[in-house]
Parts: sequence; structure tokens; C-alpha cells
Amino acid sequence: MSNMVKKIEASAGVIHEKIRKKQKPSMSFPVRSLCNVKFRPNVGYFELKGQKKTRTLTVNTAKTFAQTLRMIALSKELVEDDDEATKREAYYVSKNWEDARFDEQEESDTVMDDIEAMYEVNREQLGFIPEEKGGEVAGRLIVIDRDRETGRRLRIDCTRFGTGAYSIPIKVEDLGFETGAKFILAIETAGMFQRLVKHNYWKKANCILVSMGGVPTRACRRFIRRLADEKKLPVYVFVDGDPYGIGNIYRTLKVGSGNAAHINKYFCVPHATFMGITPQDIIDYKLPTHPLKEVDVKRAGDALKNDPFFMQHKRWQEAIEQLVKMGVRAEQQALAKHGLNYVIDRYLPEKLRHTERFLP
Amino acid sequence: MSNMVKKIEASAGVIHEKIRKKQKPSMSFPVRSLCNVKFRPNVGYFELKGQKKTRTLTVNTAKTFAQTLRMIALSKELVEDDDEATKREAYYVSKNWEDARFDEQEESDTVMDDIEAMYEVNREQLGFIPEEKGGEVAGRLIVIDRDRETGRRLRIDCTRFGTGAYSIPIKVEDLGFETGAKFILAIETAGMFQRLVKHNYWKKANCILVSMGGVPTRACRRFIRRLADEKKLPVYVFVDGDPYGIGNIYRTLKVGSGNAAHINKYFCVPHATFMGITPQDIIDYKLPTHPLKEVDVKRAGDALKNDPFFMQHKRWQEAIEQLVKMGVRAEQQALAKHGLNYVIDRYLPEKLRHTERFLP
Repeated sequence: MSNMVKKIEASAGVIHEKIRKKQKPSMSFPVRSLCNVKFRPNVGYFELKGQKKTRTLTVNTAKTFAQTLRMIALSKELVEDDDEATKREAYYVSKNWEDARFDEQEESDTVMDDIEAMYEVNREQLGFIPEEKGGEVAGRLIVIDRDRETGRRLRIDCTRFGTGAYSIPIKVEDLGFETGAKFILAIETAGMFQRLVKHNYWKKANCILVSMGGVPTRACRRFIRRLADEKKLPVYVFVDGDPYGIGNIYRTLKVGSGNAAHINKYFCVPHATFMGITPQDIIDYKLPTHPLKEVDVKRAGDALKNDPFFMQHKRWQEAIEQLVKMGVRAEQQALAKHGLNYVIDRYLPEKLRHTERFLP
Repeated sequence: MSNMVKKIEASAGVIHEKIRKKQKPSMSFPVRSLCNVKFRPNVGYFELKGQKKTRTLTVNTAKTFAQTLRMIALSKELVEDDDEATKREAYYVSKNWEDARFDEQEESDTVMDDIEAMYEVNREQLGFIPEEKGGEVAGRLIVIDRDRETGRRLRIDCTRFGTGAYSIPIKVEDLGFETGAKFILAIETAGMFQRLVKHNYWKKANCILVSMGGVPTRACRRFIRRLADEKKLPVYVFVDGDPYGIGNIYRTLKVGSGNAAHINKYFCVPHATFMGITPQDIIDYKLPTHPLKEVDVKRAGDALKNDPFFMQHKRWQEAIEQLVKMGVRAEQQALAKHGLNYVIDRYLPEKLRHTERFLP
């Protein structure tokens, strides 16, 4: 029996016992709001402070209580059957729960978030998967998956996708990895990823390329995290030199997001570092730029004033202040000014010689 | 020498000759606007009517003329080197063209569109690739690609990716295919795709699964088109039963879009048919629904009144009218009401027994 099923049976057992004793059963969940969140510099991500809310079975809570139990039962079924359901599917499944059915998906999402927080796991471990895919991989990596029907082990060799790539599945909890690569390069744009793939850059640099396609999805972040942890690989991030690349894409990958503090420990990549485009790169590589827009300046200001992650790091404050002072931003593809493959022949090798200089 | 390079050299030769004879060289391009577009029912897509604009070298056109020639030269370089550049990269490359550089990417995009229309090819054949990736594949298909450095043939077996998938590259012009599949199933949502992949649905149905992830990208549409043409495979489309799934996703895949008429012949999939979710499915399968929003009703009205594709097909008009009358929409995942795998065990087999009933 899987650990998850054991946990579910244990908690259900307590409730069942209470009911048999004619006592009021209750469940308790961490409070999921910003007032219950702190940034822990030593572990490197946002965490819950520990406030809990308790849901006791009363006349008023009967429906939610029943819905929560049914959702937990659905989770147990999914884990036992090695199946999975999206949030939306789970909502539709409830349409057959008669009085316990959900009227809006928002309600079922909330219950799912509660359960996720209650068991202190990520909902993928409960068999619930997000709606959206995202994240492609190419390079020195073999992903170990298995065929659901035959149970046969599948070795997926990411050096053999040609100009294509391995598309990360929505749920990555059970994947295994084999690799001799030296690092993971996480890339913002599909265009840059395609260039590095097309020219087999991973061969030259002995690395694994991951395309995030903007702000990385849960599955993409979890994939990088699990791979990096298991294989002790550094993660270097290569995004546009602008407040969005820094404050949204990089920050989400590295420290997670404030409103999902109860699961950040699974999804953030605390030891990721920022390779570029740095504000200093814009000067050093004489990159063509665009002026910062109002939204860029606002985003930069927010990072400096309100974001515990950036406020924590003097070097980041200096870099962001430098960018605002310069008043410009530069895209990673701006390196093409010096020739389409300048990024491969010069920029990446130069930067990678000094990984100790990467922004934290 | 590739055909594309020959075409470029021929057209450049004409211009060169004119200049040597001290005559004014000119280039002519199809007019790319809606007034020069018609829907051709017999071929099944929007097409240019044939109006041309001519750009002759004068004092006023000198800069654009030079930019067009440099862009054509860049294209020739890309094709000769087996390299590729995104629209954005091409814009940045121009920063080294001194007086011929582009100030805004919009300008370089327009010139690229002109060239694409002039040679009557899709810009991927000119070495220019779009910015965005999208589209995943799993199932009975072997994609033939090759390693750029070694020239070695790569056979990419899409039955062997476990819960993951093959991510379609941005440029698919040179891919080859081997398959024994009976059809291609093009799916709207990543969640539904993941379910069918997880349960090896492609094995049961002997098919190829493609996840479009909303409105399909150029690369995804071109991939389906090339694969379907080359292997003579029917394409069945499985999207949400709402005006967006019908009017945006399905219609874009099938007939292309009005403002890109000069390239629709490469990107549309004229023989694709609509499997579901149909308005009738909502009734037959007792699906849970959401009310149509205002934007849905507007979209449906537009399709009925202004869209030459839907106006062409009585059955589509009836189906859309039925949906508006019912006042509801249903998502493909709504089938989960009857059990998570009802879609695999009942819905798909029942529908696929009567492909002749699919909407055109």
C-alpha cells in the first residue's frame, strides 16, 4: 500500500472512530493566506507559519465536511488505481455526489487546496493534476518512466529528439533520472531553446536544456526541482533582462509564490542562480534595448520595496536599481545582433566560466 | 543547391541585371489584406485573389528596398547553413545593417511577410521560424528527424514516451513520418490529452494523439497537415463544446485565418472533421454545462453572419443555432461526470463508430 493511502486511511480512521463514539469529528488545515506566510532565508522559500483552522462537523459545516471526505475518498481511489484527475475533472466527478456535489469549480478547488495543505503534500501526490502542461527538455538526460499497462520500464533518451524535445508530463512524481550532465540550463523563450537544441548546444556544454516558455508551470518547476535534487545538479537560469524575467519567471522558479506557501517546498528550486541577461550584460555585450515600460518600473519598485526575496539580497537590489537607472530592458535574443550563434560561441561560454558571479 | 536558394538567386539575378542596365529594379508582392481574400469551398481555405503591389526602387523606397534585399540575403544564408532565426532574432540581426537596420520589429515582420508572400512559400521554408512552440504528440508514430552535426537519421518513436510526449519543434518542414495509425485525434486541452496518454488510449484506438493546448500554433498546424497529407490520415478534432472551441480552435486548424491568407495553404487542414463536443452530445450524454457568456453568444453570432466557412455549411449553422438556443456550453472534461474514464470506455468508441456523422 502506498504511503499516501496509509495516511488517508489513518486520518479517515480517526474521523470514523469519533463518529462511532458519537463525538463530533473535526479536521484541521493550515490557514492559507499571506498573514500566515514567512520567507525563510535559510531554506530559501516562503513557508507557512503554522496557524490552523479547524472544521468540526456541525449543521452548518455538514455539506463542506461531506464534500471534503468525498474528495479525500476520490484521492484514495486515484492513488490506488494509479490514475489522476485534473481539478476540473474532480469538479465534474462531484456532479454525481448528489447533495455533496459542488456548484462551482472554485469550491472544489478550495477543498482540494485544503486537503493538499492538511496532508502537507503537493496535490500531485494525491492524484490531482493541474490543468496545464508546459516545459520541454533536450540534452544529456534519460528519463525513466513506465508503461502503465505492462509495468515495463521506459528509458526516454533526451539526446535523441532531433529538433524536437521531450514534453514534460503534467505529473512528474514517479519519474526517475539518469544523467552525466554538469548543469541544467532553464530558458525563458521557446525561440532561444530551439536555437540551442538545433545546434546541439547541450553536447558542447554537457548539460540539460529546459524550455520554460515564460513563467514555468507547476510540472516544469517540480521536474527541475526533482531532477536537480536527485542528481545534485546546479540550475542556471537564462531569461530576458527585464523586471518580468527577473521578478516573475526567475523568482517563481527559485522561491515559489506567496499564495501557495504550503506547497512551495515541492515546487521551488532554492539553489537556482541567475545567469542572465543581467543589467551588466546589457552594457558589457552592447545589447540593443527597449525602454522600460511603466509596468516594468512598477514591477521593479515592488521587488525592491515589498519582496522578501529581493530585499534579502543586496546584489539583487543593486542589479534592479541599475536596471531602473538605465531605463532599458534587453531580451535574450538581442544577442543575435552580434550574429545568430554568438550566444553559443561567445556569450554562454564566457558566462559559464564564472558561475560564481551569477546573481543569487 | 536547395530549391529555395535557386528561387532566391533567380529573383536577385533579375534585380541585379536591371541595376547593371541602369534601369529601376522592382519587386512585386501579393496584397495582404481582407479585400484580397476569398474563401474557396472546393480547396477548403481562404486564399488570395491575386492583387499585387509593386515596390520599385526610388528615392522614397530606397530604405525599404534595401531592407527587403538584406532580409532575402539573410534568408539565403539561413537556408544554406541549415540554420533558422525567429522573427525577433532577424530584427536584432538587422541592428548591424547600419542605415538599413529596422527601428521596430513591426517593420521587419512586415518585410518578412512580404517576402513570404512574394515567394509563395511559408516563412519556415525561408529559415524564419515563429517565436512560440506548442503541440505535443503521443501514439503510433515514428518521426524521422536528423542530427544537424552528424547528419545521422533519428527515429523518434512516439509510443515510448510513457506519460510524457514528443514536443513538436518550431520548424517541421524537414520531418519524415512512419505510422500504421488509422487517424489523428487533435485535442484541445492538456488535461484531456494527459488522460488519453496515461491510459495508452492510442494503443486501443490505433491512433496518434496531438495536444493543441488551445488554438494551435503554426508549427502544430503544419505538423498535423504534413503528417495527414503524407500518410493519408483522417484528422478528428476533439474540443470543448463552445463557440471558442468551434469558432476559434477548430476553424483555425481547418481553414486558417483571414489575415494570413497567403500561407493558409500550408497551415490549414481542410479535411479535418469535428468529432465533439457537439451541441447534440450535450443532450445525448447529459453533460454538466455552464451558461453561455455574452462573448460566447457574440462569437456564435459572428460565425453565423460573417464567417464564410460556417456560412458555407448548413450543418454547422444548425449546430451553432442549437447551441445558442440551448444557451449553454460544455467542456470536454465534463464527460468525467460519468466516471473519469468514461471518455475512453464509452464516448470515444461510440463517436468513432460513426465518423460519417462528424460535423464538416
